[in-house]
Formats: sequence, structure tokens, C-alpha cells
Amino acid sequence: MHFTVISRILGILLMLFSLTLIPPVLVSLWFHDHNQVSFLIAFIITFAAGMVAWFPVHNVKQDLRTRDGFLVTALFWTVLGLFGSLPFMFSNGLNLSFTNAVFESLSGLTTTGATVITGLDTLPKSILYYRQQLQWLGGIGIIVIAVAILPMLGIGGMQLYRAETPGPVKDSKLTPRITETAKALFLIYLSLTVVCALSYWFAGMSLFDAICHAYATVAIGGFSTHDASMGFFQSETIHAICVFFMVVSGINFALHFYSWQDRRISNYFRDPEFQFYISAILVGCVLTIFLLYHYDVFNFTDSVGHGIFQLVSILTTTGFTTTDFSAWPSILPFMLLYFAFMGGCAGSTGGGIKVIRILLIFKQGIREIHRLIHPSAVIPIKVGSTSVSDRVVDAVWGFFSVYVFAYFMMFLVLVGTGLDVITAFFAVGACINNLGPGLGEVATHYGDMNETAKWVLCFAMLLGRLEVFTLLVLFSPMFWRR
Amino acid sequence: MHFTVISRILGILLMLFSLTLIPPVLVSLWFHDHNQVSFLIAFIITFAAGMVAWFPVHNVKQDLRTRDGFLVTALFWTVLGLFGSLPFMFSNGLNLSFTNAVFESLSGLTTTGATVITGLDTLPKSILYYRQQLQWLGGIGIIVIAVAILPMLGIGGMQLYRAETPGPVKDSKLTPRITETAKALFLIYLSLTVVCALSYWFAGMSLFDAICHAYATVAIGGFSTHDASMGFFQSETIHAICVFFMVVSGINFALHFYSWQDRRISNYFRDPEFQFYISAILVGCVLTIFLLYHYDVFNFTDSVGHGIFQLVSILTTTGFTTTDFSAWPSILPFMLLYFAFMGGCAGSTGGGIKVIRILLIFKQGIREIHRLIHPSAVIPIKVGSTSVSDRVVDAVWGFFSVYVFAYFMMFLVLVGTGLDVITAFFAVGACINNLGPGLGEVATHYGDMNETAKWVLCFAMLLGRLEVFTLLVLFSPMFWRR
Ligand SMILES: [K+]
Ligand SMILES: [K+]
Repeated sequence: MHFTVISRILGILLMLFSLTLIPPVLVSLWFHDHNQVSFLIAFIITFAAGMVAWFPVHNVKQDLRTRDGFLVTALFWTVLGLFGSLPFMFSNGLNLSFTNAVFESLSGLTTTGATVITGLDTLPKSILYYRQQLQWLGGIGIIVIAVAILPMLGIGGMQLYRAETPGPVKDSKLTPRITETAKALFLIYLSLTVVCALSYWFAGMSLFDAICHAYATVAIGGFSTHDASMGFFQSETIHAICVFFMVVSGINFALHFYSWQDRRISNYFRDPEFQFYISAILVGCVLTIFLLYHYDVFNFTDSVGHGIFQLVSILTTTGFTTTDFSAWPSILPFMLLYFAFMGGCAGSTGGGIKVIRILLIFKQGIREIHRLIHPSAVIPIKVGSTSVSDRVVDAVWGFFSVYVFAYFMMFLVLVGTGLDVITAFFAVGACINNLGPGLGEVATHYGDMNETAKWVLCFAMLLGRLEVFTLLVLFSPMFWRR
Repeated sequence: MHFTVISRILGILLMLFSLTLIPPVLVSLWFHDHNQVSFLIAFIITFAAGMVAWFPVHNVKQDLRTRDGFLVTALFWTVLGLFGSLPFMFSNGLNLSFTNAVFESLSGLTTTGATVITGLDTLPKSILYYRQQLQWLGGIGIIVIAVAILPMLGIGGMQLYRAETPGPVKDSKLTPRITETAKALFLIYLSLTVVCALSYWFAGMSLFDAICHAYATVAIGGFSTHDASMGFFQSETIHAICVFFMVVSGINFALHFYSWQDRRISNYFRDPEFQFYISAILVGCVLTIFLLYHYDVFNFTDSVGHGIFQLVSILTTTGFTTTDFSAWPSILPFMLLYFAFMGGCAGSTGGGIKVIRILLIFKQGIREIHRLIHPSAVIPIKVGSTSVSDRVVDAVWGFFSVYVFAYFMMFLVLVGTGLDVITAFFAVGACINNLGPGLGEVATHYGDMNETAKWVLCFAMLLGRLEVFTLLVLFSPMFWRR
């Protein structure tokens, strides 16, 4: 382990992160909500901490190696999560406990969107803005940092992409022009945000709400400035815009990159992961609408409206709501949660197991059946025209098993702390998939939960966002040897 | 497909099975419960059906091939399950509906032990005997199929046991080896049953109860002649005997075969699956006792007694109870259900995913972590001293994923039929793992459930008993080609 390089990188990250505490100061001054001091204090502490980590080692010229990438990735989320919690502890009229502040901060950065706060509508604007911005930053982190920024700091690109996503790596063409690509990915992310915000604004949101919700939409975060979430805006246009941008943000950003570069929409439709993703959304919408209508929850028009919105919001793991879906007949929230387990495409801001892995598991399941019928046949697994190596196959099975195993262990611990079964089931599901809202006690917020449960759920959010194995590797004695 | 041979085999099986309807006639006559006629009618129908299937093709000399094995295995459970339901429909004072009768019969044959009947203590003795005997017959069927047929078919990685199968290994023809193997296994199975029955008898059970419960113990079935199950017998000796024979019956019968043949107890302790099985039981007992005591359910002595009994009963998927464990704090039944997902060893009468597969998944999970740390290393997976082939690794991952997937799909359908979430969760878990008792509505019996749910659960029992893939293969168009 090269602790000096790691310290240097963390220092830079913290100082960069501290700069993001300046916009909330401006928001606070603009809206006169008297919260600028808490953000300034948080800025000073974070910047100073970054300086302390960076300055003693800023001259060290050492290359970061593959193995360090795991630690850097894990520290990125935990350390920023910790420092990001400072404004929540300092702010007037909020004064969250340490546990609650860390939960809110991690939930923002990992784009989970589970909140411990109620009464959003009356909260200082600067706090509201800060929560949304956390998600937006987390979203960039998810897409760009693993692919581009850390390699710029001296890490071989693909290895770290592997640290973020132990599953299949999408396109080897990303490696050589990693800096270029990073800029391009950021540009796409920014453009999407701007277009989304403008659309919301033109559709009737206030400029403040439009920017805030664009942040949370493109980051697949799901935080809102209103307790009623997207349901606050009684506009079908706004809901339709939201659905469109959630779907777009759930697509692999590398695919966006290549399609935008080539100016070819057809690139999307040739991508097997995209095909599977869109098919799942269509099948999910039809099922949801059918069940809503069948169980007489809404009339047909409302079944279509709420059905499409809620399916897309939960499948992509955004977590916005237009209605209290936790009151729907049990089969619906469970089915929606299943779709959240699939989640978005790899390389998107979405959570869950990721579409490409589900696609591979599906193909491997079919192969197992064919192998039983033709035991001596050699049947390769193909995604598009490329065969998937055995290593990738093993890694995907492993990912799925460990994911399921971790899920059920955390569920058991939550039940052990006294949560009722439904709450525990959905809370873990909502956190490990970086989804946000659940059922039962956590249908709207996580504030009333016991401390132990909150820390377990923080772990779940990290586990999901770190693609499980990045975190598990750190618990392996072999990792720390030599 | 060789339908003539399959028809011949089914005919023979049905005629053999019809003979097992004679002992209940004798029991009925002995206890004067006036039920002999219903068994006689069932005998005549079953024998006649067997004759119809066998006679036209009894001269056909054709060998069964590997692929036919899937169909024979699936038909074995479904056809015997259907004919086994006849006595339940015909019997005085029972008169089960078709759905209930099939559920009870399948539950018996698959050694699940879920029952739709209440008031067992007042039921005619011949019916009680018949239920227990169904489990015992199912048990020997499971062992013979698991040891002799599944390794040949390669289901869920069971080709791992191909070389170890007792009996002569000649060629891919299934018939001769099954006969030899079946004889040896049956002898062990019978001896265990006799010793178990005698132990129960000496410990204070009536001879009738001793035989009946020995059937259900060795078969890991869990049916009882009393509503209170093993709790009816207020004897720690009886409970201890039961625990011992449940543990023994959960061991691979091929391992019993080799150890008995060599007269070496040490064979057991050198077997990696046995080691893992015993360790899991010990860890499970400690956890259960600790939680029972921690949550103040019992005093320490009772925590030990009920803890050990319930853990072993549920881990091995027997399903006997000494106390109402469904009233324990939620974490306990859930934890016990997790252990039931592991279940017994391959080649035992136990259900679940099987110990060897969990062991392999565990080892593969560790390997994935090591591969991330040392990407270029070649790390074989070993069970004992033998390396496990990639095919087996793939098959085990596949088995696990499909098992989990099937579980959650059936759970969703049950919730859709209106069952509450806890009932549905445990009902599917209790049936796919061939365990028996659940929580909620199905804590004691399955009688009050809706018809659709019962059929789904019948499917779950079959799916579990057929190791998922045997059934799935039959739904593949490729299987029926040529
Ligand atoms: K989210
Ligand atoms: K059972």
C-alpha cells in the first residue's frame, strides 16, 4: 500500500470537495436564510483537513498501483461522506445528530436518496440546495472518478475501472484517451443537467426547484425539496420530463459518449445492454399498469400515469414518487423492488446489480439448461458479437451471490434490532440498491429508525455503491499483506 | 426420447407403488378404523394404471439414455404424487378435495411435510400410517435418484459425485447401475429406520408412533401422528434420539455407504461436505441458543433444549417441532429459514440448496476476492484434495441464481393471491426447501390457503425436490427436439 500517495489524493479530493461548499453559501445569502456561517465553517474544516492530508506528501512522486485503487475508491465515499455531513450538524433549525448527519450525507453522495429529514418544504433553501448538490456530485463521482480522474492522478485506467465495477468492462477504447473521455463524460453529464433543468423550468417549476430536481434526476438520486417529492408538482408535463431524464440517466454514459461522438442514435439500439434495459422498462410498465388497474387502485388513465412514473423511478433506482406507492397492494411494491435489484446500466448513475449483469446471469442460466441437454457441447456466452470470458462469467455469478448474501445478512441484523419485517426488507433493499424510499416505517423517511439500523443501512449504501467487492476486498487479510 | 421405455418404467413404478397401499389396509384392519376399502380401491386403480402403462410395451428392449433421465425423474414425483393422493380423497372422515389431496400427497412424497390436515390425533390410524409411509418411500426415492441418477445428468454441479457413486460404473446406460446402487442404499436406509424405530420405542413411544416417526425422521419428512409434532412427547430422550437421527439422515448416503463398507468412522470426518455440515450445525446451535436466551424466550436449559432441536430440525429441513417457534422473535425464524436454505448434504433425504453447493459458493466467493487482489493468479477451487472443474463451478452458481430467482417469483405470485407477506415468504421457503412448517398462516398447517397458492406451493415442492433444473429442462424447447 502506498499510503503517502493515497494521502495526497485524499487531500486533493477534500480540498476540491470543500469548494463545493461555496455555492450553498451563495444560495444562503441570496435567500437570506442565515445559514451561510455553517457552510463557511464546514468549508474551512474540510479545506484544512485536505491541506493537512496533502501538504506533507505533496512532493511525493510515486505511482498509484491497482491495489491502492480499492482503498482510494472506498475512502472516496467514506471520507467525503463524513465531511459532507458537517453542514447538516451545524445548520440552524436542523442540528442533526452525528448518525443522522452521516446517514443523510452518505445517502446524498451515493445517490441513494433515503432521508432522515421531514418538513423539507420549510427547510432553509441553502440546506435544500446542498442536499441536491451532494447527489449531483455523487453522480459525477460514480461516472467520472472511477473512469477518469483517479487514473489521471497516476493509476492505470482499466484497473481502477475494475475496482469500481468488478463485472464486465464495457469498452476497452476508453483506456487510451482517458483524460479526454473524462472531460467528455462530464460535458455530457453537465449538458443533460442543464437541458433537464431548463425543461423543468419551462414546464412550470421555479428556477430553484428546476435546478435542484435536475441535479437529483440526472444523478438518479431522488432527493427532493418537497416532502411530496415529484407529487408536489401537479403537472403531467413535469412528470413526463422526469421519466425521460431518468431513463436517459440510467444508460451507460460510455454509450452516450460513443453515440454523441458518432452522432448516431442507432448506436444505442445496437447495444445489448440498452436493448435489455429498454425491454425491461417496457415489460415493467405493462405489468405495473395492469396490476394497478386489476387491483382497482386507480382508473385506467391514472394507472398509466402513476404506473409508468413509479416503475421508471424505481427500476432506475431514482426513488422519486408521485403518489404513496407503499399503500398499493403488496405485490406491486415487491415487484417494483425486484426491478430496482436490476437497476440501471453499468456506467450510469443508477444503482442495483446493473442491467448487464442481469443480462449475463440470464444468458448463463439458459446455457446451464442447454449444457444439461448437450453435455459435451461448448457453448460460449455472447454479448452482442463478443464472447464473454470465463473470468467475467465467474465474477458475475460471484457478484450476484455475494449481493444476495449481504442483503439477507443485513436484513437479519435489522430484524434483530427490532424493526418489523417489511420495513427491514425494504430498507435494506432501498439502501443496497441506492434506491431511497421503502415500505413500512421507511415509506417516506428513515428518521425514526434506531441508531444501529441506520449504521447498517449506511454500510448497505456503501456496499451497493462500491459494487460490493471493492469493500469486501478491504476485509481480506490477503489485501493488506506485503 | 424413448417413450416406450419411459412408459414401461412408469408402469413398473406404479405397480410397485400400488403394493405399498397394502400395509395401510393391514393397519386399518388391525386398528378397526374401517378405512381398508378406500386403500383397496386406491390399490386397484393404481395397479391397473400401472398395468396399462406397462403391458403394451413390456417386451420392448431398449436402454434408457441420459436425456430420458430428466423425464423419468420428473414423472416419478408427479405421477406418484397424483396416484398417492387417491387414499386422501377416498378415506372416511377426511374426504380431502382434489387440490388438498394432491398437496398432502406431494408434500409426503417430496418429504416436505407441509400438511393441510388438522386434528391429526383423532384421525384413523391407517391414514396416519399412510402419510408417514409416503414420506419414507419418498426418502428412498430421493436418495437413489440423487446418488445414482443426478450425477449422471450433471444437475447443479452434481457431476462432482460421478466417480464416487457406489456400484459398478459401466457406461452411460442408467438401468444396471441404478439397480446395484439402489440395493446398497436401501439396506442402509432400512437399517437406519429400524434402529431409529427401536430407539423411539425403547424411549417410551408406542410401537405405532415409533415406526411412524422413524419413517418421518430418516426420510427428513417431518410428518407426525400428532398436531403437537415431537412436542407431544414430553421426553428429552426422545428429542435427543430424534436430533441424532435427523443429523445422520442429513449426511450423504454415499458417504454412509463407503464408511460402512470400510467400517471406518474416520471416513466421515475426512469428507469436506460433512465437516462443513457439522460446523454449520454447531454454529447454528450456538447462535440459536444465544438468541433464545438473549431475547428472554426461555431460561438457559430450555434455550439449549429447544434451540438444538429446532435448529437441527429446520437446518436438515425435517420440520419437526417441540415448541411454537413461529412465536419467537422474528430474527430467529428467519435465521432458521436461512439454514434451511442450506439444507442437508447432497445424496441425503434433506432438502434445500445442499451443503456441498453452499460450500462451493463460499469457496468461489473467496476466490473472487483473491482474483481481484492477484488478477493474474490461477486459483483452483478444491474440495478436499480434488480440484473442481469450471463446469461444476458454473453449474453451482447457476443453481443458486435460479433457485433464488424461482423463490422470489413464487413469493410474488403468492402475495398476489392475497397472502400476507410473512406467510408467503415462509410458505415458499418451507416448500422449495422441502422443509414443511412456516410462519404466519402456515405456522402449523396449510389448509386455509387459497387454491392457487396451494398449486404454486406444489410446484415449489417439486422444484426443490427435482433440484430446479430437472424441471426447467423440460420447459426448454431444445429438450424436446429430435
Ligand atoms: K436513488
Ligand atoms: K421436511
